[in-house]
Amino acid sequence: MSQQWVTIALDAMGGDHGPSVVVPAAIEALRRYPRLRLILVGLDEAVQGELKAHNSALSERLLLRAATQVVSMCEPPSQALRGKKDSSMRVAINLVKEGEAMACVSAGNTGALMATARFVLKTLPGIDRPAILSKLPTMNGHTHVLDLGANVDSSAEHLYQFAVMGSVLVSAVDSKPAPTVGLLNIGEEEIKGNEQVKEAAKLLQGSGLNYTGFVEGDDIYKGSVDVVVCDGFVGNVALKTSEGLAKMVSHYIRQEFKRNLLTKLAALVAMPVLKAFRARIDPRNYNGASLVGLRGIVIKSHGSADVHSFVTAIGEALVEVKKNVPELISEQLSEKLKVQEQRQAV
Amino acid sequence: MSQQWVTIALDAMGGDHGPSVVVPAAIEALRRYPRLRLILVGLDEAVQGELKAHNSALSERLLLRAATQVVSMCEPPSQALRGKKDSSMRVAINLVKEGEAMACVSAGNTGALMATARFVLKTLPGIDRPAILSKLPTMNGHTHVLDLGANVDSSAEHLYQFAVMGSVLVSAVDSKPAPTVGLLNIGEEEIKGNEQVKEAAKLLQGSGLNYTGFVEGDDIYKGSVDVVVCDGFVGNVALKTSEGLAKMVSHYIRQEFKRNLLTKLAALVAMPVLKAFRARIDPRNYNGASLVGLRGIVIKSHGSADVHSFVTAIGEALVEVKKNVPELISEQLSEKLKVQEQRQAV
Repeated sequence: MSQQWVTIALDAMGGDHGPSVVVPAAIEALRRYPRLRLILVGLDEAVQGELKAHNSALSERLLLRAATQVVSMCEPPSQALRGKKDSSMRVAINLVKEGEAMACVSAGNTGALMATARFVLKTLPGIDRPAILSKLPTMNGHTHVLDLGANVDSSAEHLYQFAVMGSVLVSAVDSKPAPTVGLLNIGEEEIKGNEQVKEAAKLLQGSGLNYTGFVEGDDIYKGSVDVVVCDGFVGNVALKTSEGLAKMVSHYIRQEFKRNLLTKLAALVAMPVLKAFRARIDPRNYNGASLVGLRGIVIKSHGSADVHSFVTAIGEALVEVKKNVPELISEQLSEKLKVQEQRQAV
Repeated sequence: MSQQWVTIALDAMGGDHGPSVVVPAAIEALRRYPRLRLILVGLDEAVQGELKAHNSALSERLLLRAATQVVSMCEPPSQALRGKKDSSMRVAINLVKEGEAMACVSAGNTGALMATARFVLKTLPGIDRPAILSKLPTMNGHTHVLDLGANVDSSAEHLYQFAVMGSVLVSAVDSKPAPTVGLLNIGEEEIKGNEQVKEAAKLLQGSGLNYTGFVEGDDIYKGSVDVVVCDGFVGNVALKTSEGLAKMVSHYIRQEFKRNLLTKLAALVAMPVLKAFRARIDPRNYNGASLVGLRGIVIKSHGSADVHSFVTAIGEALVEVKKNVPELISEQLSEKLKVQEQRQAV
């Protein structure tokens, strides 16, 4: 009878806040998604304590799988991989591998999560390196960007694979038959950029993807394309720079409204409007990056995620399960690679 | 008698708006800086026409040097270099080379400006590649970032040279004896990042610069360090992404305040406060990127700069002339390189 559920494993110990965020987020997600079943993976006492604190208990839809170790936020991935075989993160990923869960969500250490997921689940055929993909708000809706930090020094072939994975995922989750794909560069002209980007452009031109050419940093938030492809070093810097700028803007807006009695009164009047603005680009509604290219669904929540954000990440996992993203990527990729091989053979 | 003046050449034809911005900006800058003398370089008629339109005329402090060609904004640098030897951009740079001007400012095509400046002025001894440096606002003042797009695939040695150039420039223009220098990376841990960044970190640790280690994208706007060093591809993406995000934020704030009568009333009350906020991070006050590493001072204004912005760029050129930035970089660099050679010899 368990077939009626979509079962997702949660790394209950991950992130800056551990079970104090993951447990209430689980309770909220179960309320929101009637077909969802969750497995909390973590230290028995810590999880049970948090359940009690929220007047909640384990049930048919909220299971507990004990783990005895926790991967810390700054632990080197290799150490987590070798020394923490019973960590909440590892056990949650094992559940996906063994088919007990259809996806897992963790707010833990990104490097350790990627290394562990790659080791346990393996990459899809044709994928050299998994990538981190996330949705970001734009002027006209949202876009998806990958890679956001799993890979540095990506080759043209890697960028090509990212493009295929991004395109397939977006086509599935946004129900767009042919999402537009842009390659992040420092100018739109053909002659600009580094060798990897120029070479990747050539691969993409003959790919059958809806490749529209080079895009620049500002095209991300303009929403010029559905999928922005870049090396992980570049993508990570772009994402973190955005976080920093958003914090600075919010800091200065607050400071100006707190300046004196008049500005404080103005704040009272303006706040509802500023809140409505904030809701439209609230990063909490964009939480949940996908580790794409693996034989299983792994969603990375921001380490500092609050309950609302973590629920968003669970929702993202749910969508990818329903759309069967890894299988779609695998099918499309083997097709694209075949086309390429045929072309090379001609 | 001309020794009393600081003479700066302006590429009057550069940028999206050409003389219609550069000429009024020149008039305003002369009003603001009493020791300044400007040479407008451009098509005779266009510049004269614009002077008339502003009820202004040439004078002892406002000279005209005619040029017969214009480099367009999307022209390939090699074409501008070979085919436009009498362009306003080239002639302005020539004036610096010949000592008639102490600096030049152009809002023209970045690639062409860099290529021409490098060809005409040459790089300083010990500098392989010039870099683009700009000031950016932060939570606690401002920081400087380089390279912003002159170089892709920078090696560790290039990043090291950028660090020296950035440090010397900031120490001069901000009168800080030992500005802090951070290396942009995708994590603060020693093991993260690409090879170039890891290798550059080693060079910087023994450099005598006030190197504080790796910084991440969000550290730019946090103002964690005085100088942020990165490859030009990465820096350009970070800068353009910031521009895109700022535009999106401003777009959504406007949209929310225009939603209905109530929000429009709220806007009336909130606008002075939002304007005060905007003034604090107004990009127009940060216009004027330095092409550092050349035997002369060349300032790049944003192509879409308005009059206010272009005056800021002229002000930046003036400061660098007063502080004698290229000579300082040259001295410091030869010193640093000597230290390194001695160390390698030991």
